[in-house]
Amino acid sequence: MIIDGLQYANWSEKVFRQMREGGVDAVHVTIAYHEMFRETVANIEAWNRWFERFPDLIRHAKTGDDIRAAKAEGRTAIVFGAQTPAPIEDDIGLVEIMHTLGLRFMQLSYNNQSLLATGCYEAEDPGLTRMGREVIAEMNRVGLVVDMSHSAERSTLEAIEESTRPIAITHANPASWHAARRNKSDTVLRALAETGGMLGFSLYPHHLKGGSDCALQGFCEMIARTAEQMGVERLGIGSDLCQDQPDRVVEWMRVGRWTKRVDYGEGSADAPGFPPQPDFFRDNRDFPRLANGLRAVGFDAPEVEAILGGNWLRFFDDSFGGMP
Amino acid sequence: MIIDGLQYANWSEKVFRQMREGGVDAVHVTIAYHEMFRETVANIEAWNRWFERFPDLIRHAKTGDDIRAAKAEGRTAIVFGAQTPAPIEDDIGLVEIMHTLGLRFMQLSYNNQSLLATGCYEAEDPGLTRMGREVIAEMNRVGLVVDMSHSAERSTLEAIEESTRPIAITHANPASWHAARRNKSDTVLRALAETGGMLGFSLYPHHLKGGSDCALQGFCEMIARTAEQMGVERLGIGSDLCQDQPDRVVEWMRVGRWTKRVDYGEGSADAPGFPPQPDFFRDNRDFPRLANGLRAVGFDAPEVEAILGGNWLRFFDDSFGGMP
Repeated sequence: MIIDGLQYANWSEKVFRQMREGGVDAVHVTIAYHEMFRETVANIEAWNRWFERFPDLIRHAKTGDDIRAAKAEGRTAIVFGAQTPAPIEDDIGLVEIMHTLGLRFMQLSYNNQSLLATGCYEAEDPGLTRMGREVIAEMNRVGLVVDMSHSAERSTLEAIEESTRPIAITHANPASWHAARRNKSDTVLRALAETGGMLGFSLYPHHLKGGSDCALQGFCEMIARTAEQMGVERLGIGSDLCQDQPDRVVEWMRVGRWTKRVDYGEGSADAPGFPPQPDFFRDNRDFPRLANGLRAVGFDAPEVEAILGGNWLRFFDDSFGGMP
Repeated sequence: MIIDGLQYANWSEKVFRQMREGGVDAVHVTIAYHEMFRETVANIEAWNRWFERFPDLIRHAKTGDDIRAAKAEGRTAIVFGAQTPAPIEDDIGLVEIMHTLGLRFMQLSYNNQSLLATGCYEAEDPGLTRMGREVIAEMNRVGLVVDMSHSAERSTLEAIEESTRPIAITHANPASWHAARRNKSDTVLRALAETGGMLGFSLYPHHLKGGSDCALQGFCEMIARTAEQMGVERLGIGSDLCQDQPDRVVEWMRVGRWTKRVDYGEGSADAPGFPPQPDFFRDNRDFPRLANGLRAVGFDAPEVEAILGGNWLRFFDDSFGGMP
């Protein structure tokens, strides 16, 4: 079982075929950054068209069993997620609506302050808001996973504490390995592991030590160290693969409609676009290389299977339904 | 099994308890008249609150099996429908979105011309529109029932012809019994029956011979004559019960936002409000009276069971899923 805990490709038949070639059984795909409710619904409509056009390659998944069925059918299961809470606007009732439409992950904040929590680029992090606490309870009730990948430290720790169900950081790496603002402190990783949460390791070059030049061995040694810290069962991949996207898309991800200026996020004026992927992970066909790399640093076969998909599947089983 | 093919009450714990008292296992409820997509979603959010508040009385149903489960649990199953196509706006992709959110019936037109078809109050009926034919195909694909209760004659006949799956007239009576504009011609009823469609008999006084003074026996004799014409298996109840609604609601149903004047629809300047219900059917507690009335005009027990719910359940089983 191979599951990728986050991608935002420029979707096409080519990408879906590469998922099949790479043996990818399920992908959590971003269906919204700054899109409000109606725009997010339009994005789901576009996904419904993909499902109708390529029934031999992909299918929508709302449960772990949908992923098992996809695997048996030789298709890749698509799980919906949102990187900001924009799709629920200011309306807690939209949490259940979005869940009914298939949303299974939602970040409480993305770089900036939201109605719910603080993002990792704000100067101050006052923690969860009043609405943030209400929305976490509602997400817990319906089975929508709290994702704090782009959130600030205090907000993240409070979300881990507030949530009655384990949360996820779908795409980030330990800051102790590479001190990027988006990577996570040992304090966060410890709290995440202690509450049964999941960390998806990112392959986005800004999150990698050495950036685009990061080598497979170094990446896998980092995973091995994190496994000692958090436990193997808390780990997955969240590649953050943004394949075939034009650079205007990374600008949209960073800027949305919150400013009229350019914000470079993890980039810079000299390098405003998507950075090149590392050699060892260019697209979905490279998942077998990750398996080889993990074995080379000492993980046994069941551990490799767990990190590449089994852990996410167990987490999906526990997280996507109503409150047990 | 007792199923009501249409209600639009002023929902309350009182109404839900009366459903249980009347032994009503499922109700197709109107969640939108002139509400566009976002407003309809807000109405679903309100229903989600009812489901959360009264889990012992009601549950949402998307399939016939959900209704069987509700009956086994001693709850009333709620099936969503829309009386106009306003919820899908001008966007065919919203057909699948609304189906995912639970919509199982949608009228193609309501009294007036819509983007899809003509309503029964227009002077001219040019039949299905281009978009109307596309939307019927999409409704057929996903399992959303075409309902022509408020549509004009030619549009209705064309919808019956165009749809590859049986359609419904959820709430109307034969015009041969009472020549109201909303009641249906023998031509329509014949075409409906020949294609496996369903007619839900209305208890809204404007659709009854004698109006509010209509007696149970006359109503049931009309059902007996229609059974000879269409076959017992094509018949159900669609009471059109609008219990506890203030008169501003019937004005909204008729006027929506399409005019700034008052349109009295089936009412008049002298009687603009909801007419009083007939003595024999005041609310959900009166379904057993309908059973008695049907037996009194000669239906045997299996036929009564079929008309009061069994036929709708079979139709739901055949209609609510994707294309077989």
